[in-house]
Amino acid sequence: MTDAPAHREAPDAEAVPAVPSAPERAPSRVAVERLYPEIDGGRFPAKRVAGDEMVVEVNAVADGHDELRCALLHRRDGATAWTETPMTSLVNDRWRGSFPVPALGAYEYTAEAWIDRFRTWRRDFERRLEVRQDVAVELLVAAQLVGAAAARTTGEAARKLHATSRALLPPVDVQARIKTALDETLLGLMDEHGERANVTRYPRTARVMVDPPRAAFSAWYELFPRSASTKAGKHGTFRDVIDRLPYIAGLGFDVLYLPPIHPIGITHRKGKNNAVTCGIDDPGSPWAIGAGAGGHTAIHPKLGTIDDFRALVRAAGEHGMDVALDIAFQCSPDHPWITEHPLWFRRRPDGTARYAENPPKKYEDIYPLDFESGDWRGLWEALRDVFLYWAEQGVHIFRVDNPHTKPFAFWEWVIAEVKRAHPEALFLAEAFTRPQVMYELAKVGFSQSYTYFAWRNSAWELRQYFEELTQTELSEFFRPNLWPNTPDILTEYLQAGGEPAFRARLLLAATLGANYGIYGPSFEKGEAIPRAPGSEEYRDSEKYEVRTWDVDESSAMADFIRRVNAIRRENEALHNDRSLRFHPVDNEQLLCYSKQSADGESVIVVVVNVDPHFTQSGWVHLPPADVGMPDGAPFQVHDLLGDARYIWEGDGHFVQLDPRSTPAHIFAVRKKLRSEREFEYYF
Amino acid sequence: MTDAPAHREAPDAEAVPAVPSAPERAPSRVAVERLYPEIDGGRFPAKRVAGDEMVVEVNAVADGHDELRCALLHRRDGATAWTETPMTSLVNDRWRGSFPVPALGAYEYTAEAWIDRFRTWRRDFERRLEVRQDVAVELLVAAQLVGAAAARTTGEAARKLHATSRALLPPVDVQARIKTALDETLLGLMDEHGERANVTRYPRTARVMVDPPRAAFSAWYELFPRSASTKAGKHGTFRDVIDRLPYIAGLGFDVLYLPPIHPIGITHRKGKNNAVTCGIDDPGSPWAIGAGAGGHTAIHPKLGTIDDFRALVRAAGEHGMDVALDIAFQCSPDHPWITEHPLWFRRRPDGTARYAENPPKKYEDIYPLDFESGDWRGLWEALRDVFLYWAEQGVHIFRVDNPHTKPFAFWEWVIAEVKRAHPEALFLAEAFTRPQVMYELAKVGFSQSYTYFAWRNSAWELRQYFEELTQTELSEFFRPNLWPNTPDILTEYLQAGGEPAFRARLLLAATLGANYGIYGPSFEKGEAIPRAPGSEEYRDSEKYEVRTWDVDESSAMADFIRRVNAIRRENEALHNDRSLRFHPVDNEQLLCYSKQSADGESVIVVVVNVDPHFTQSGWVHLPPADVGMPDGAPFQVHDLLGDARYIWEGDGHFVQLDPRSTPAHIFAVRKKLRSEREFEYYF
Repeated sequence: MTDAPAHREAPDAEAVPAVPSAPERAPSRVAVERLYPEIDGGRFPAKRVAGDEMVVEVNAVADGHDELRCALLHRRDGATAWTETPMTSLVNDRWRGSFPVPALGAYEYTAEAWIDRFRTWRRDFERRLEVRQDVAVELLVAAQLVGAAAARTTGEAARKLHATSRALLPPVDVQARIKTALDETLLGLMDEHGERANVTRYPRTARVMVDPPRAAFSAWYELFPRSASTKAGKHGTFRDVIDRLPYIAGLGFDVLYLPPIHPIGITHRKGKNNAVTCGIDDPGSPWAIGAGAGGHTAIHPKLGTIDDFRALVRAAGEHGMDVALDIAFQCSPDHPWITEHPLWFRRRPDGTARYAENPPKKYEDIYPLDFESGDWRGLWEALRDVFLYWAEQGVHIFRVDNPHTKPFAFWEWVIAEVKRAHPEALFLAEAFTRPQVMYELAKVGFSQSYTYFAWRNSAWELRQYFEELTQTELSEFFRPNLWPNTPDILTEYLQAGGEPAFRARLLLAATLGANYGIYGPSFEKGEAIPRAPGSEEYRDSEKYEVRTWDVDESSAMADFIRRVNAIRRENEALHNDRSLRFHPVDNEQLLCYSKQSADGESVIVVVVNVDPHFTQSGWVHLPPADVGMPDGAPFQVHDLLGDARYIWEGDGHFVQLDPRSTPAHIFAVRKKLRSEREFEYYF
Repeated sequence: MTDAPAHREAPDAEAVPAVPSAPERAPSRVAVERLYPEIDGGRFPAKRVAGDEMVVEVNAVADGHDELRCALLHRRDGATAWTETPMTSLVNDRWRGSFPVPALGAYEYTAEAWIDRFRTWRRDFERRLEVRQDVAVELLVAAQLVGAAAARTTGEAARKLHATSRALLPPVDVQARIKTALDETLLGLMDEHGERANVTRYPRTARVMVDPPRAAFSAWYELFPRSASTKAGKHGTFRDVIDRLPYIAGLGFDVLYLPPIHPIGITHRKGKNNAVTCGIDDPGSPWAIGAGAGGHTAIHPKLGTIDDFRALVRAAGEHGMDVALDIAFQCSPDHPWITEHPLWFRRRPDGTARYAENPPKKYEDIYPLDFESGDWRGLWEALRDVFLYWAEQGVHIFRVDNPHTKPFAFWEWVIAEVKRAHPEALFLAEAFTRPQVMYELAKVGFSQSYTYFAWRNSAWELRQYFEELTQTELSEFFRPNLWPNTPDILTEYLQAGGEPAFRARLLLAATLGANYGIYGPSFEKGEAIPRAPGSEEYRDSEKYEVRTWDVDESSAMADFIRRVNAIRRENEALHNDRSLRFHPVDNEQLLCYSKQSADGESVIVVVVNVDPHFTQSGWVHLPPADVGMPDGAPFQVHDLLGDARYIWEGDGHFVQLDPRSTPAHIFAVRKKLRSEREFEYYF
């Protein structure tokens, strides 16, 4: 929005009965098209967070040379009255406006344009004056326009307009009438009360969904509560997790994400390292949900009680952290629903249950749910109630397991249902599948999404992928959440690259993505041994056994993570993805990119050496104007990681990075560089 | 369309009453999105010509791993039944299909996708067989699916499906059942009769407007009939134009375009060289339409009678040419409408008529029409009747003067009205204005559009502009018509470049654009003297006086034009704009581009020297695969202008062009190059 925009309550088009006009008006001469953002013709909302300014653009054109004006209309979803804000003309008949979105939930918006006869007249009038044309008749036209505006309004404005209309007529002196006609106050009055001719409303209404700020900027830390004990071999509890909160919060994370915390099935339970048979003490995979002790709303008895869980949520809050739960809609053969709701599970023609499979792979410890059964409504409502149950326990962030194997329509419905009761709720989609399916899940409502980041390791891959995510319409609805590792993903890059690789990947995740996360303490410990060569599974994975971690907040890695997270928090440039821009480097092992805050005050330039083995150097091509600096003047870049300061001048800047000491620079661009001209006695 | 597609009559979604389903089905799992082309959410039609294949793409995705199928639905505008053609899966969940558009007028299309349970089952079944899983139960599933399909149909198909269903059950031997299940005939039957689960129709219907082939491929020749006499000083007639037809047709043009042929106003008539006062013999500008002898449906008495005009249209037809008329909706102060329909013209508050102006410029010999008056309907209908009158005289191509100063809604209405009676009608928009206004006119119905071509003279400008026109969505509705010169535009490039400049510009217009035109005989004569330095107006312009031209069909320029037009006609690659691709050249004075026919059989590569003064040489970067040649093998390019043949091999090709002899190569790429292997005794 421009400064102090004129807000004006506009009646809803549908709510006001059409005034029969005599004679019938010709169709409007104004075309309003190409509203942006508008996802799939308004079918899906764009996404923003509370406090954002929602910027909207639209095309508006008419025939001829008339001056147009354009207004953005917005309202809270469900409201009837529109609030109007003026839009500004850009180049090429494009207009831009904005409105603030302070509240959670959906807003609607559209645009309207019309011909402004007074501004058209005024522009032509000025041109006529320039060439000293006789303007006597033109002043009569102005008097007509102003008089008509007066007749259209009441009160003080009407009085002023009437007076002005008379002041534009003889016998008033021509020079005085010209002055009156060009008066800025008159222009303001006419903007407000002048006729809006040929008003055209954009044919559709678009929507924006407003989430809490954490949807756009978050640092996640995933851990297995059962491995949170400090005593080797002992099953961890929520109380153990509470004890670890100072460590996690100290590293700078703000979302604590727990894999499923429910009772684990016995039948077909997997053993250590995903063995088909399990030993008597094997705890099983937390994703094989449900046993005698309950299903998706129960807590695994060894983790603690619901009160312990509530205490954990509370304690996390005191450390500035939200607890995120893993919602995996699938059942172990021992889940209560199997017997209570047989219709919710598919059976084969021989009567046996259809376990999960992606032929030829079989997952016999898991039964998928049938979202299309005769009792689909019963199932959908039960699943909604799972979310609502945990929301009532204080959880409002949900990491959803494999959403791409459940219907889009279900997610659209359930996310809307949960948000209706809990507008602060956030949903992270764990869908490692084809791009269009991932994007569809984001469209139907997921607040954040896992990405292919883990497998994009070279500079050109990262650049290509993140340009797609941030420079296209995707940035309107798909919020990437970047994970260097997860309990399922130990990439070859981490396996081969040692600690330098872990540092480079953390830094890339934390600065390429406003949302990122790590799976710890595995990450801090640099755990990098796969179950087998070529596998991305960990050896002795926590997914199948209880582990114990000796966390160390004074380790070099902890120090590095703490520093990167602090830089993220302190530099607003890193709180968004949409401003991401890449800059050329003449060494393909170096990646350079920048981000800026919406107001341009915070500017960060990152240069990363993606080669974890060798020192790399090269020239970054970064004209000062690309980061908001005046061309031709030197400026300072301050490396927030190493605390060194450099003066950059011109377009090319030399950089050298040794992965063993530091894999990257995170430069804050300092706007002002002092010179002799600022010395007291210079002038 | 793939070979022999299965057409199937699908009922219209709206026409069939919804069958109440018990129990209620879950919402569809399939999402169908991003139909292309679909201009502004289906608000405007795409454009094709009769005989084209209309290619359509769409996204279709579902959760999970089920196999989808997708169909394109199309129908003539106004029909109720859809015709269905299968779409083919591309990468990234994108589907493509096509349908033929043999008839003039509009077609509607949309897409539908569904889950194919049998194909899903079959794919998984093959994977199970590969790892030798027990498939006994899976064969039961197949029997169920086939049995259900049998129950859904009747006749021979039902009988076959019933039999197959039984053959999939014990006691038939398992190996025989596997063979039955994988039988291709069964697959075909199931494709046709198997259940379509989760059918989703794209939410909107898009349209395509089908024009005559000349809308997409035409060569225009503009002349002033009053200058068509061979006797100096004599006012030319339609009969003189008839005498010139063999010359024009011989040059290879197929549209003969005449500036307005109506009586010309006397009041404020402009003199020679646009002088404000005119001499007694000055004929005035043909665009100052209307006098005592009539208005937009009358003929200037000195040009001949309506019968002469009809004779001209007939004679042009005999030479393979259409006559195009200039429709300029504006009136001289002497036009009959001024007195007959005073409401159709704006007046100023002092009662005087409002002549045309774009302040501070005044056009006092012209009154604009008021499209918004109380009698707008009367005016709109009268203007429509102008088109209909000339259409009845055999004219179906209209070059519309300044359409951007009349409402879009008027054009949308009038073009639809004219096409309703004359679906073969074509409209060329002469709008030299801002891009969005030009594009809007194309959207609302103009078949072709003038462009900025005249002012794009450097290689990079041409490349940038024509990539915008042909590589974006614009190519779906905006058909460029390229003019090196017009009676209003004598560019500085032509003024300075001499005959080499005329040749280069003609060749660029004729090969960059499938539609192009010249203003002759001025063009063939190389007329290049402006009225004043810095002006784009001609000295002694035909717009204000009668000229006489001594045309010469054996001139070097005539020969060049004839050759270029013959190459255009003979090479289908040049009949479209959408295939235009530019190729890098290491000399910025050289421009290289290619075009291909839809079937890839005709491939043309053009290299132009845009410098009219100096010989330029350089290396064209053109990997053989870019023009459909196998990489690594040499291929022949045949210069159709100079008749030389070159063997090209690898990616770089040297070119040198002397503007004094020839400004360009127009290479036909020859698919087959003989080698020793084709020699009879080689093997």
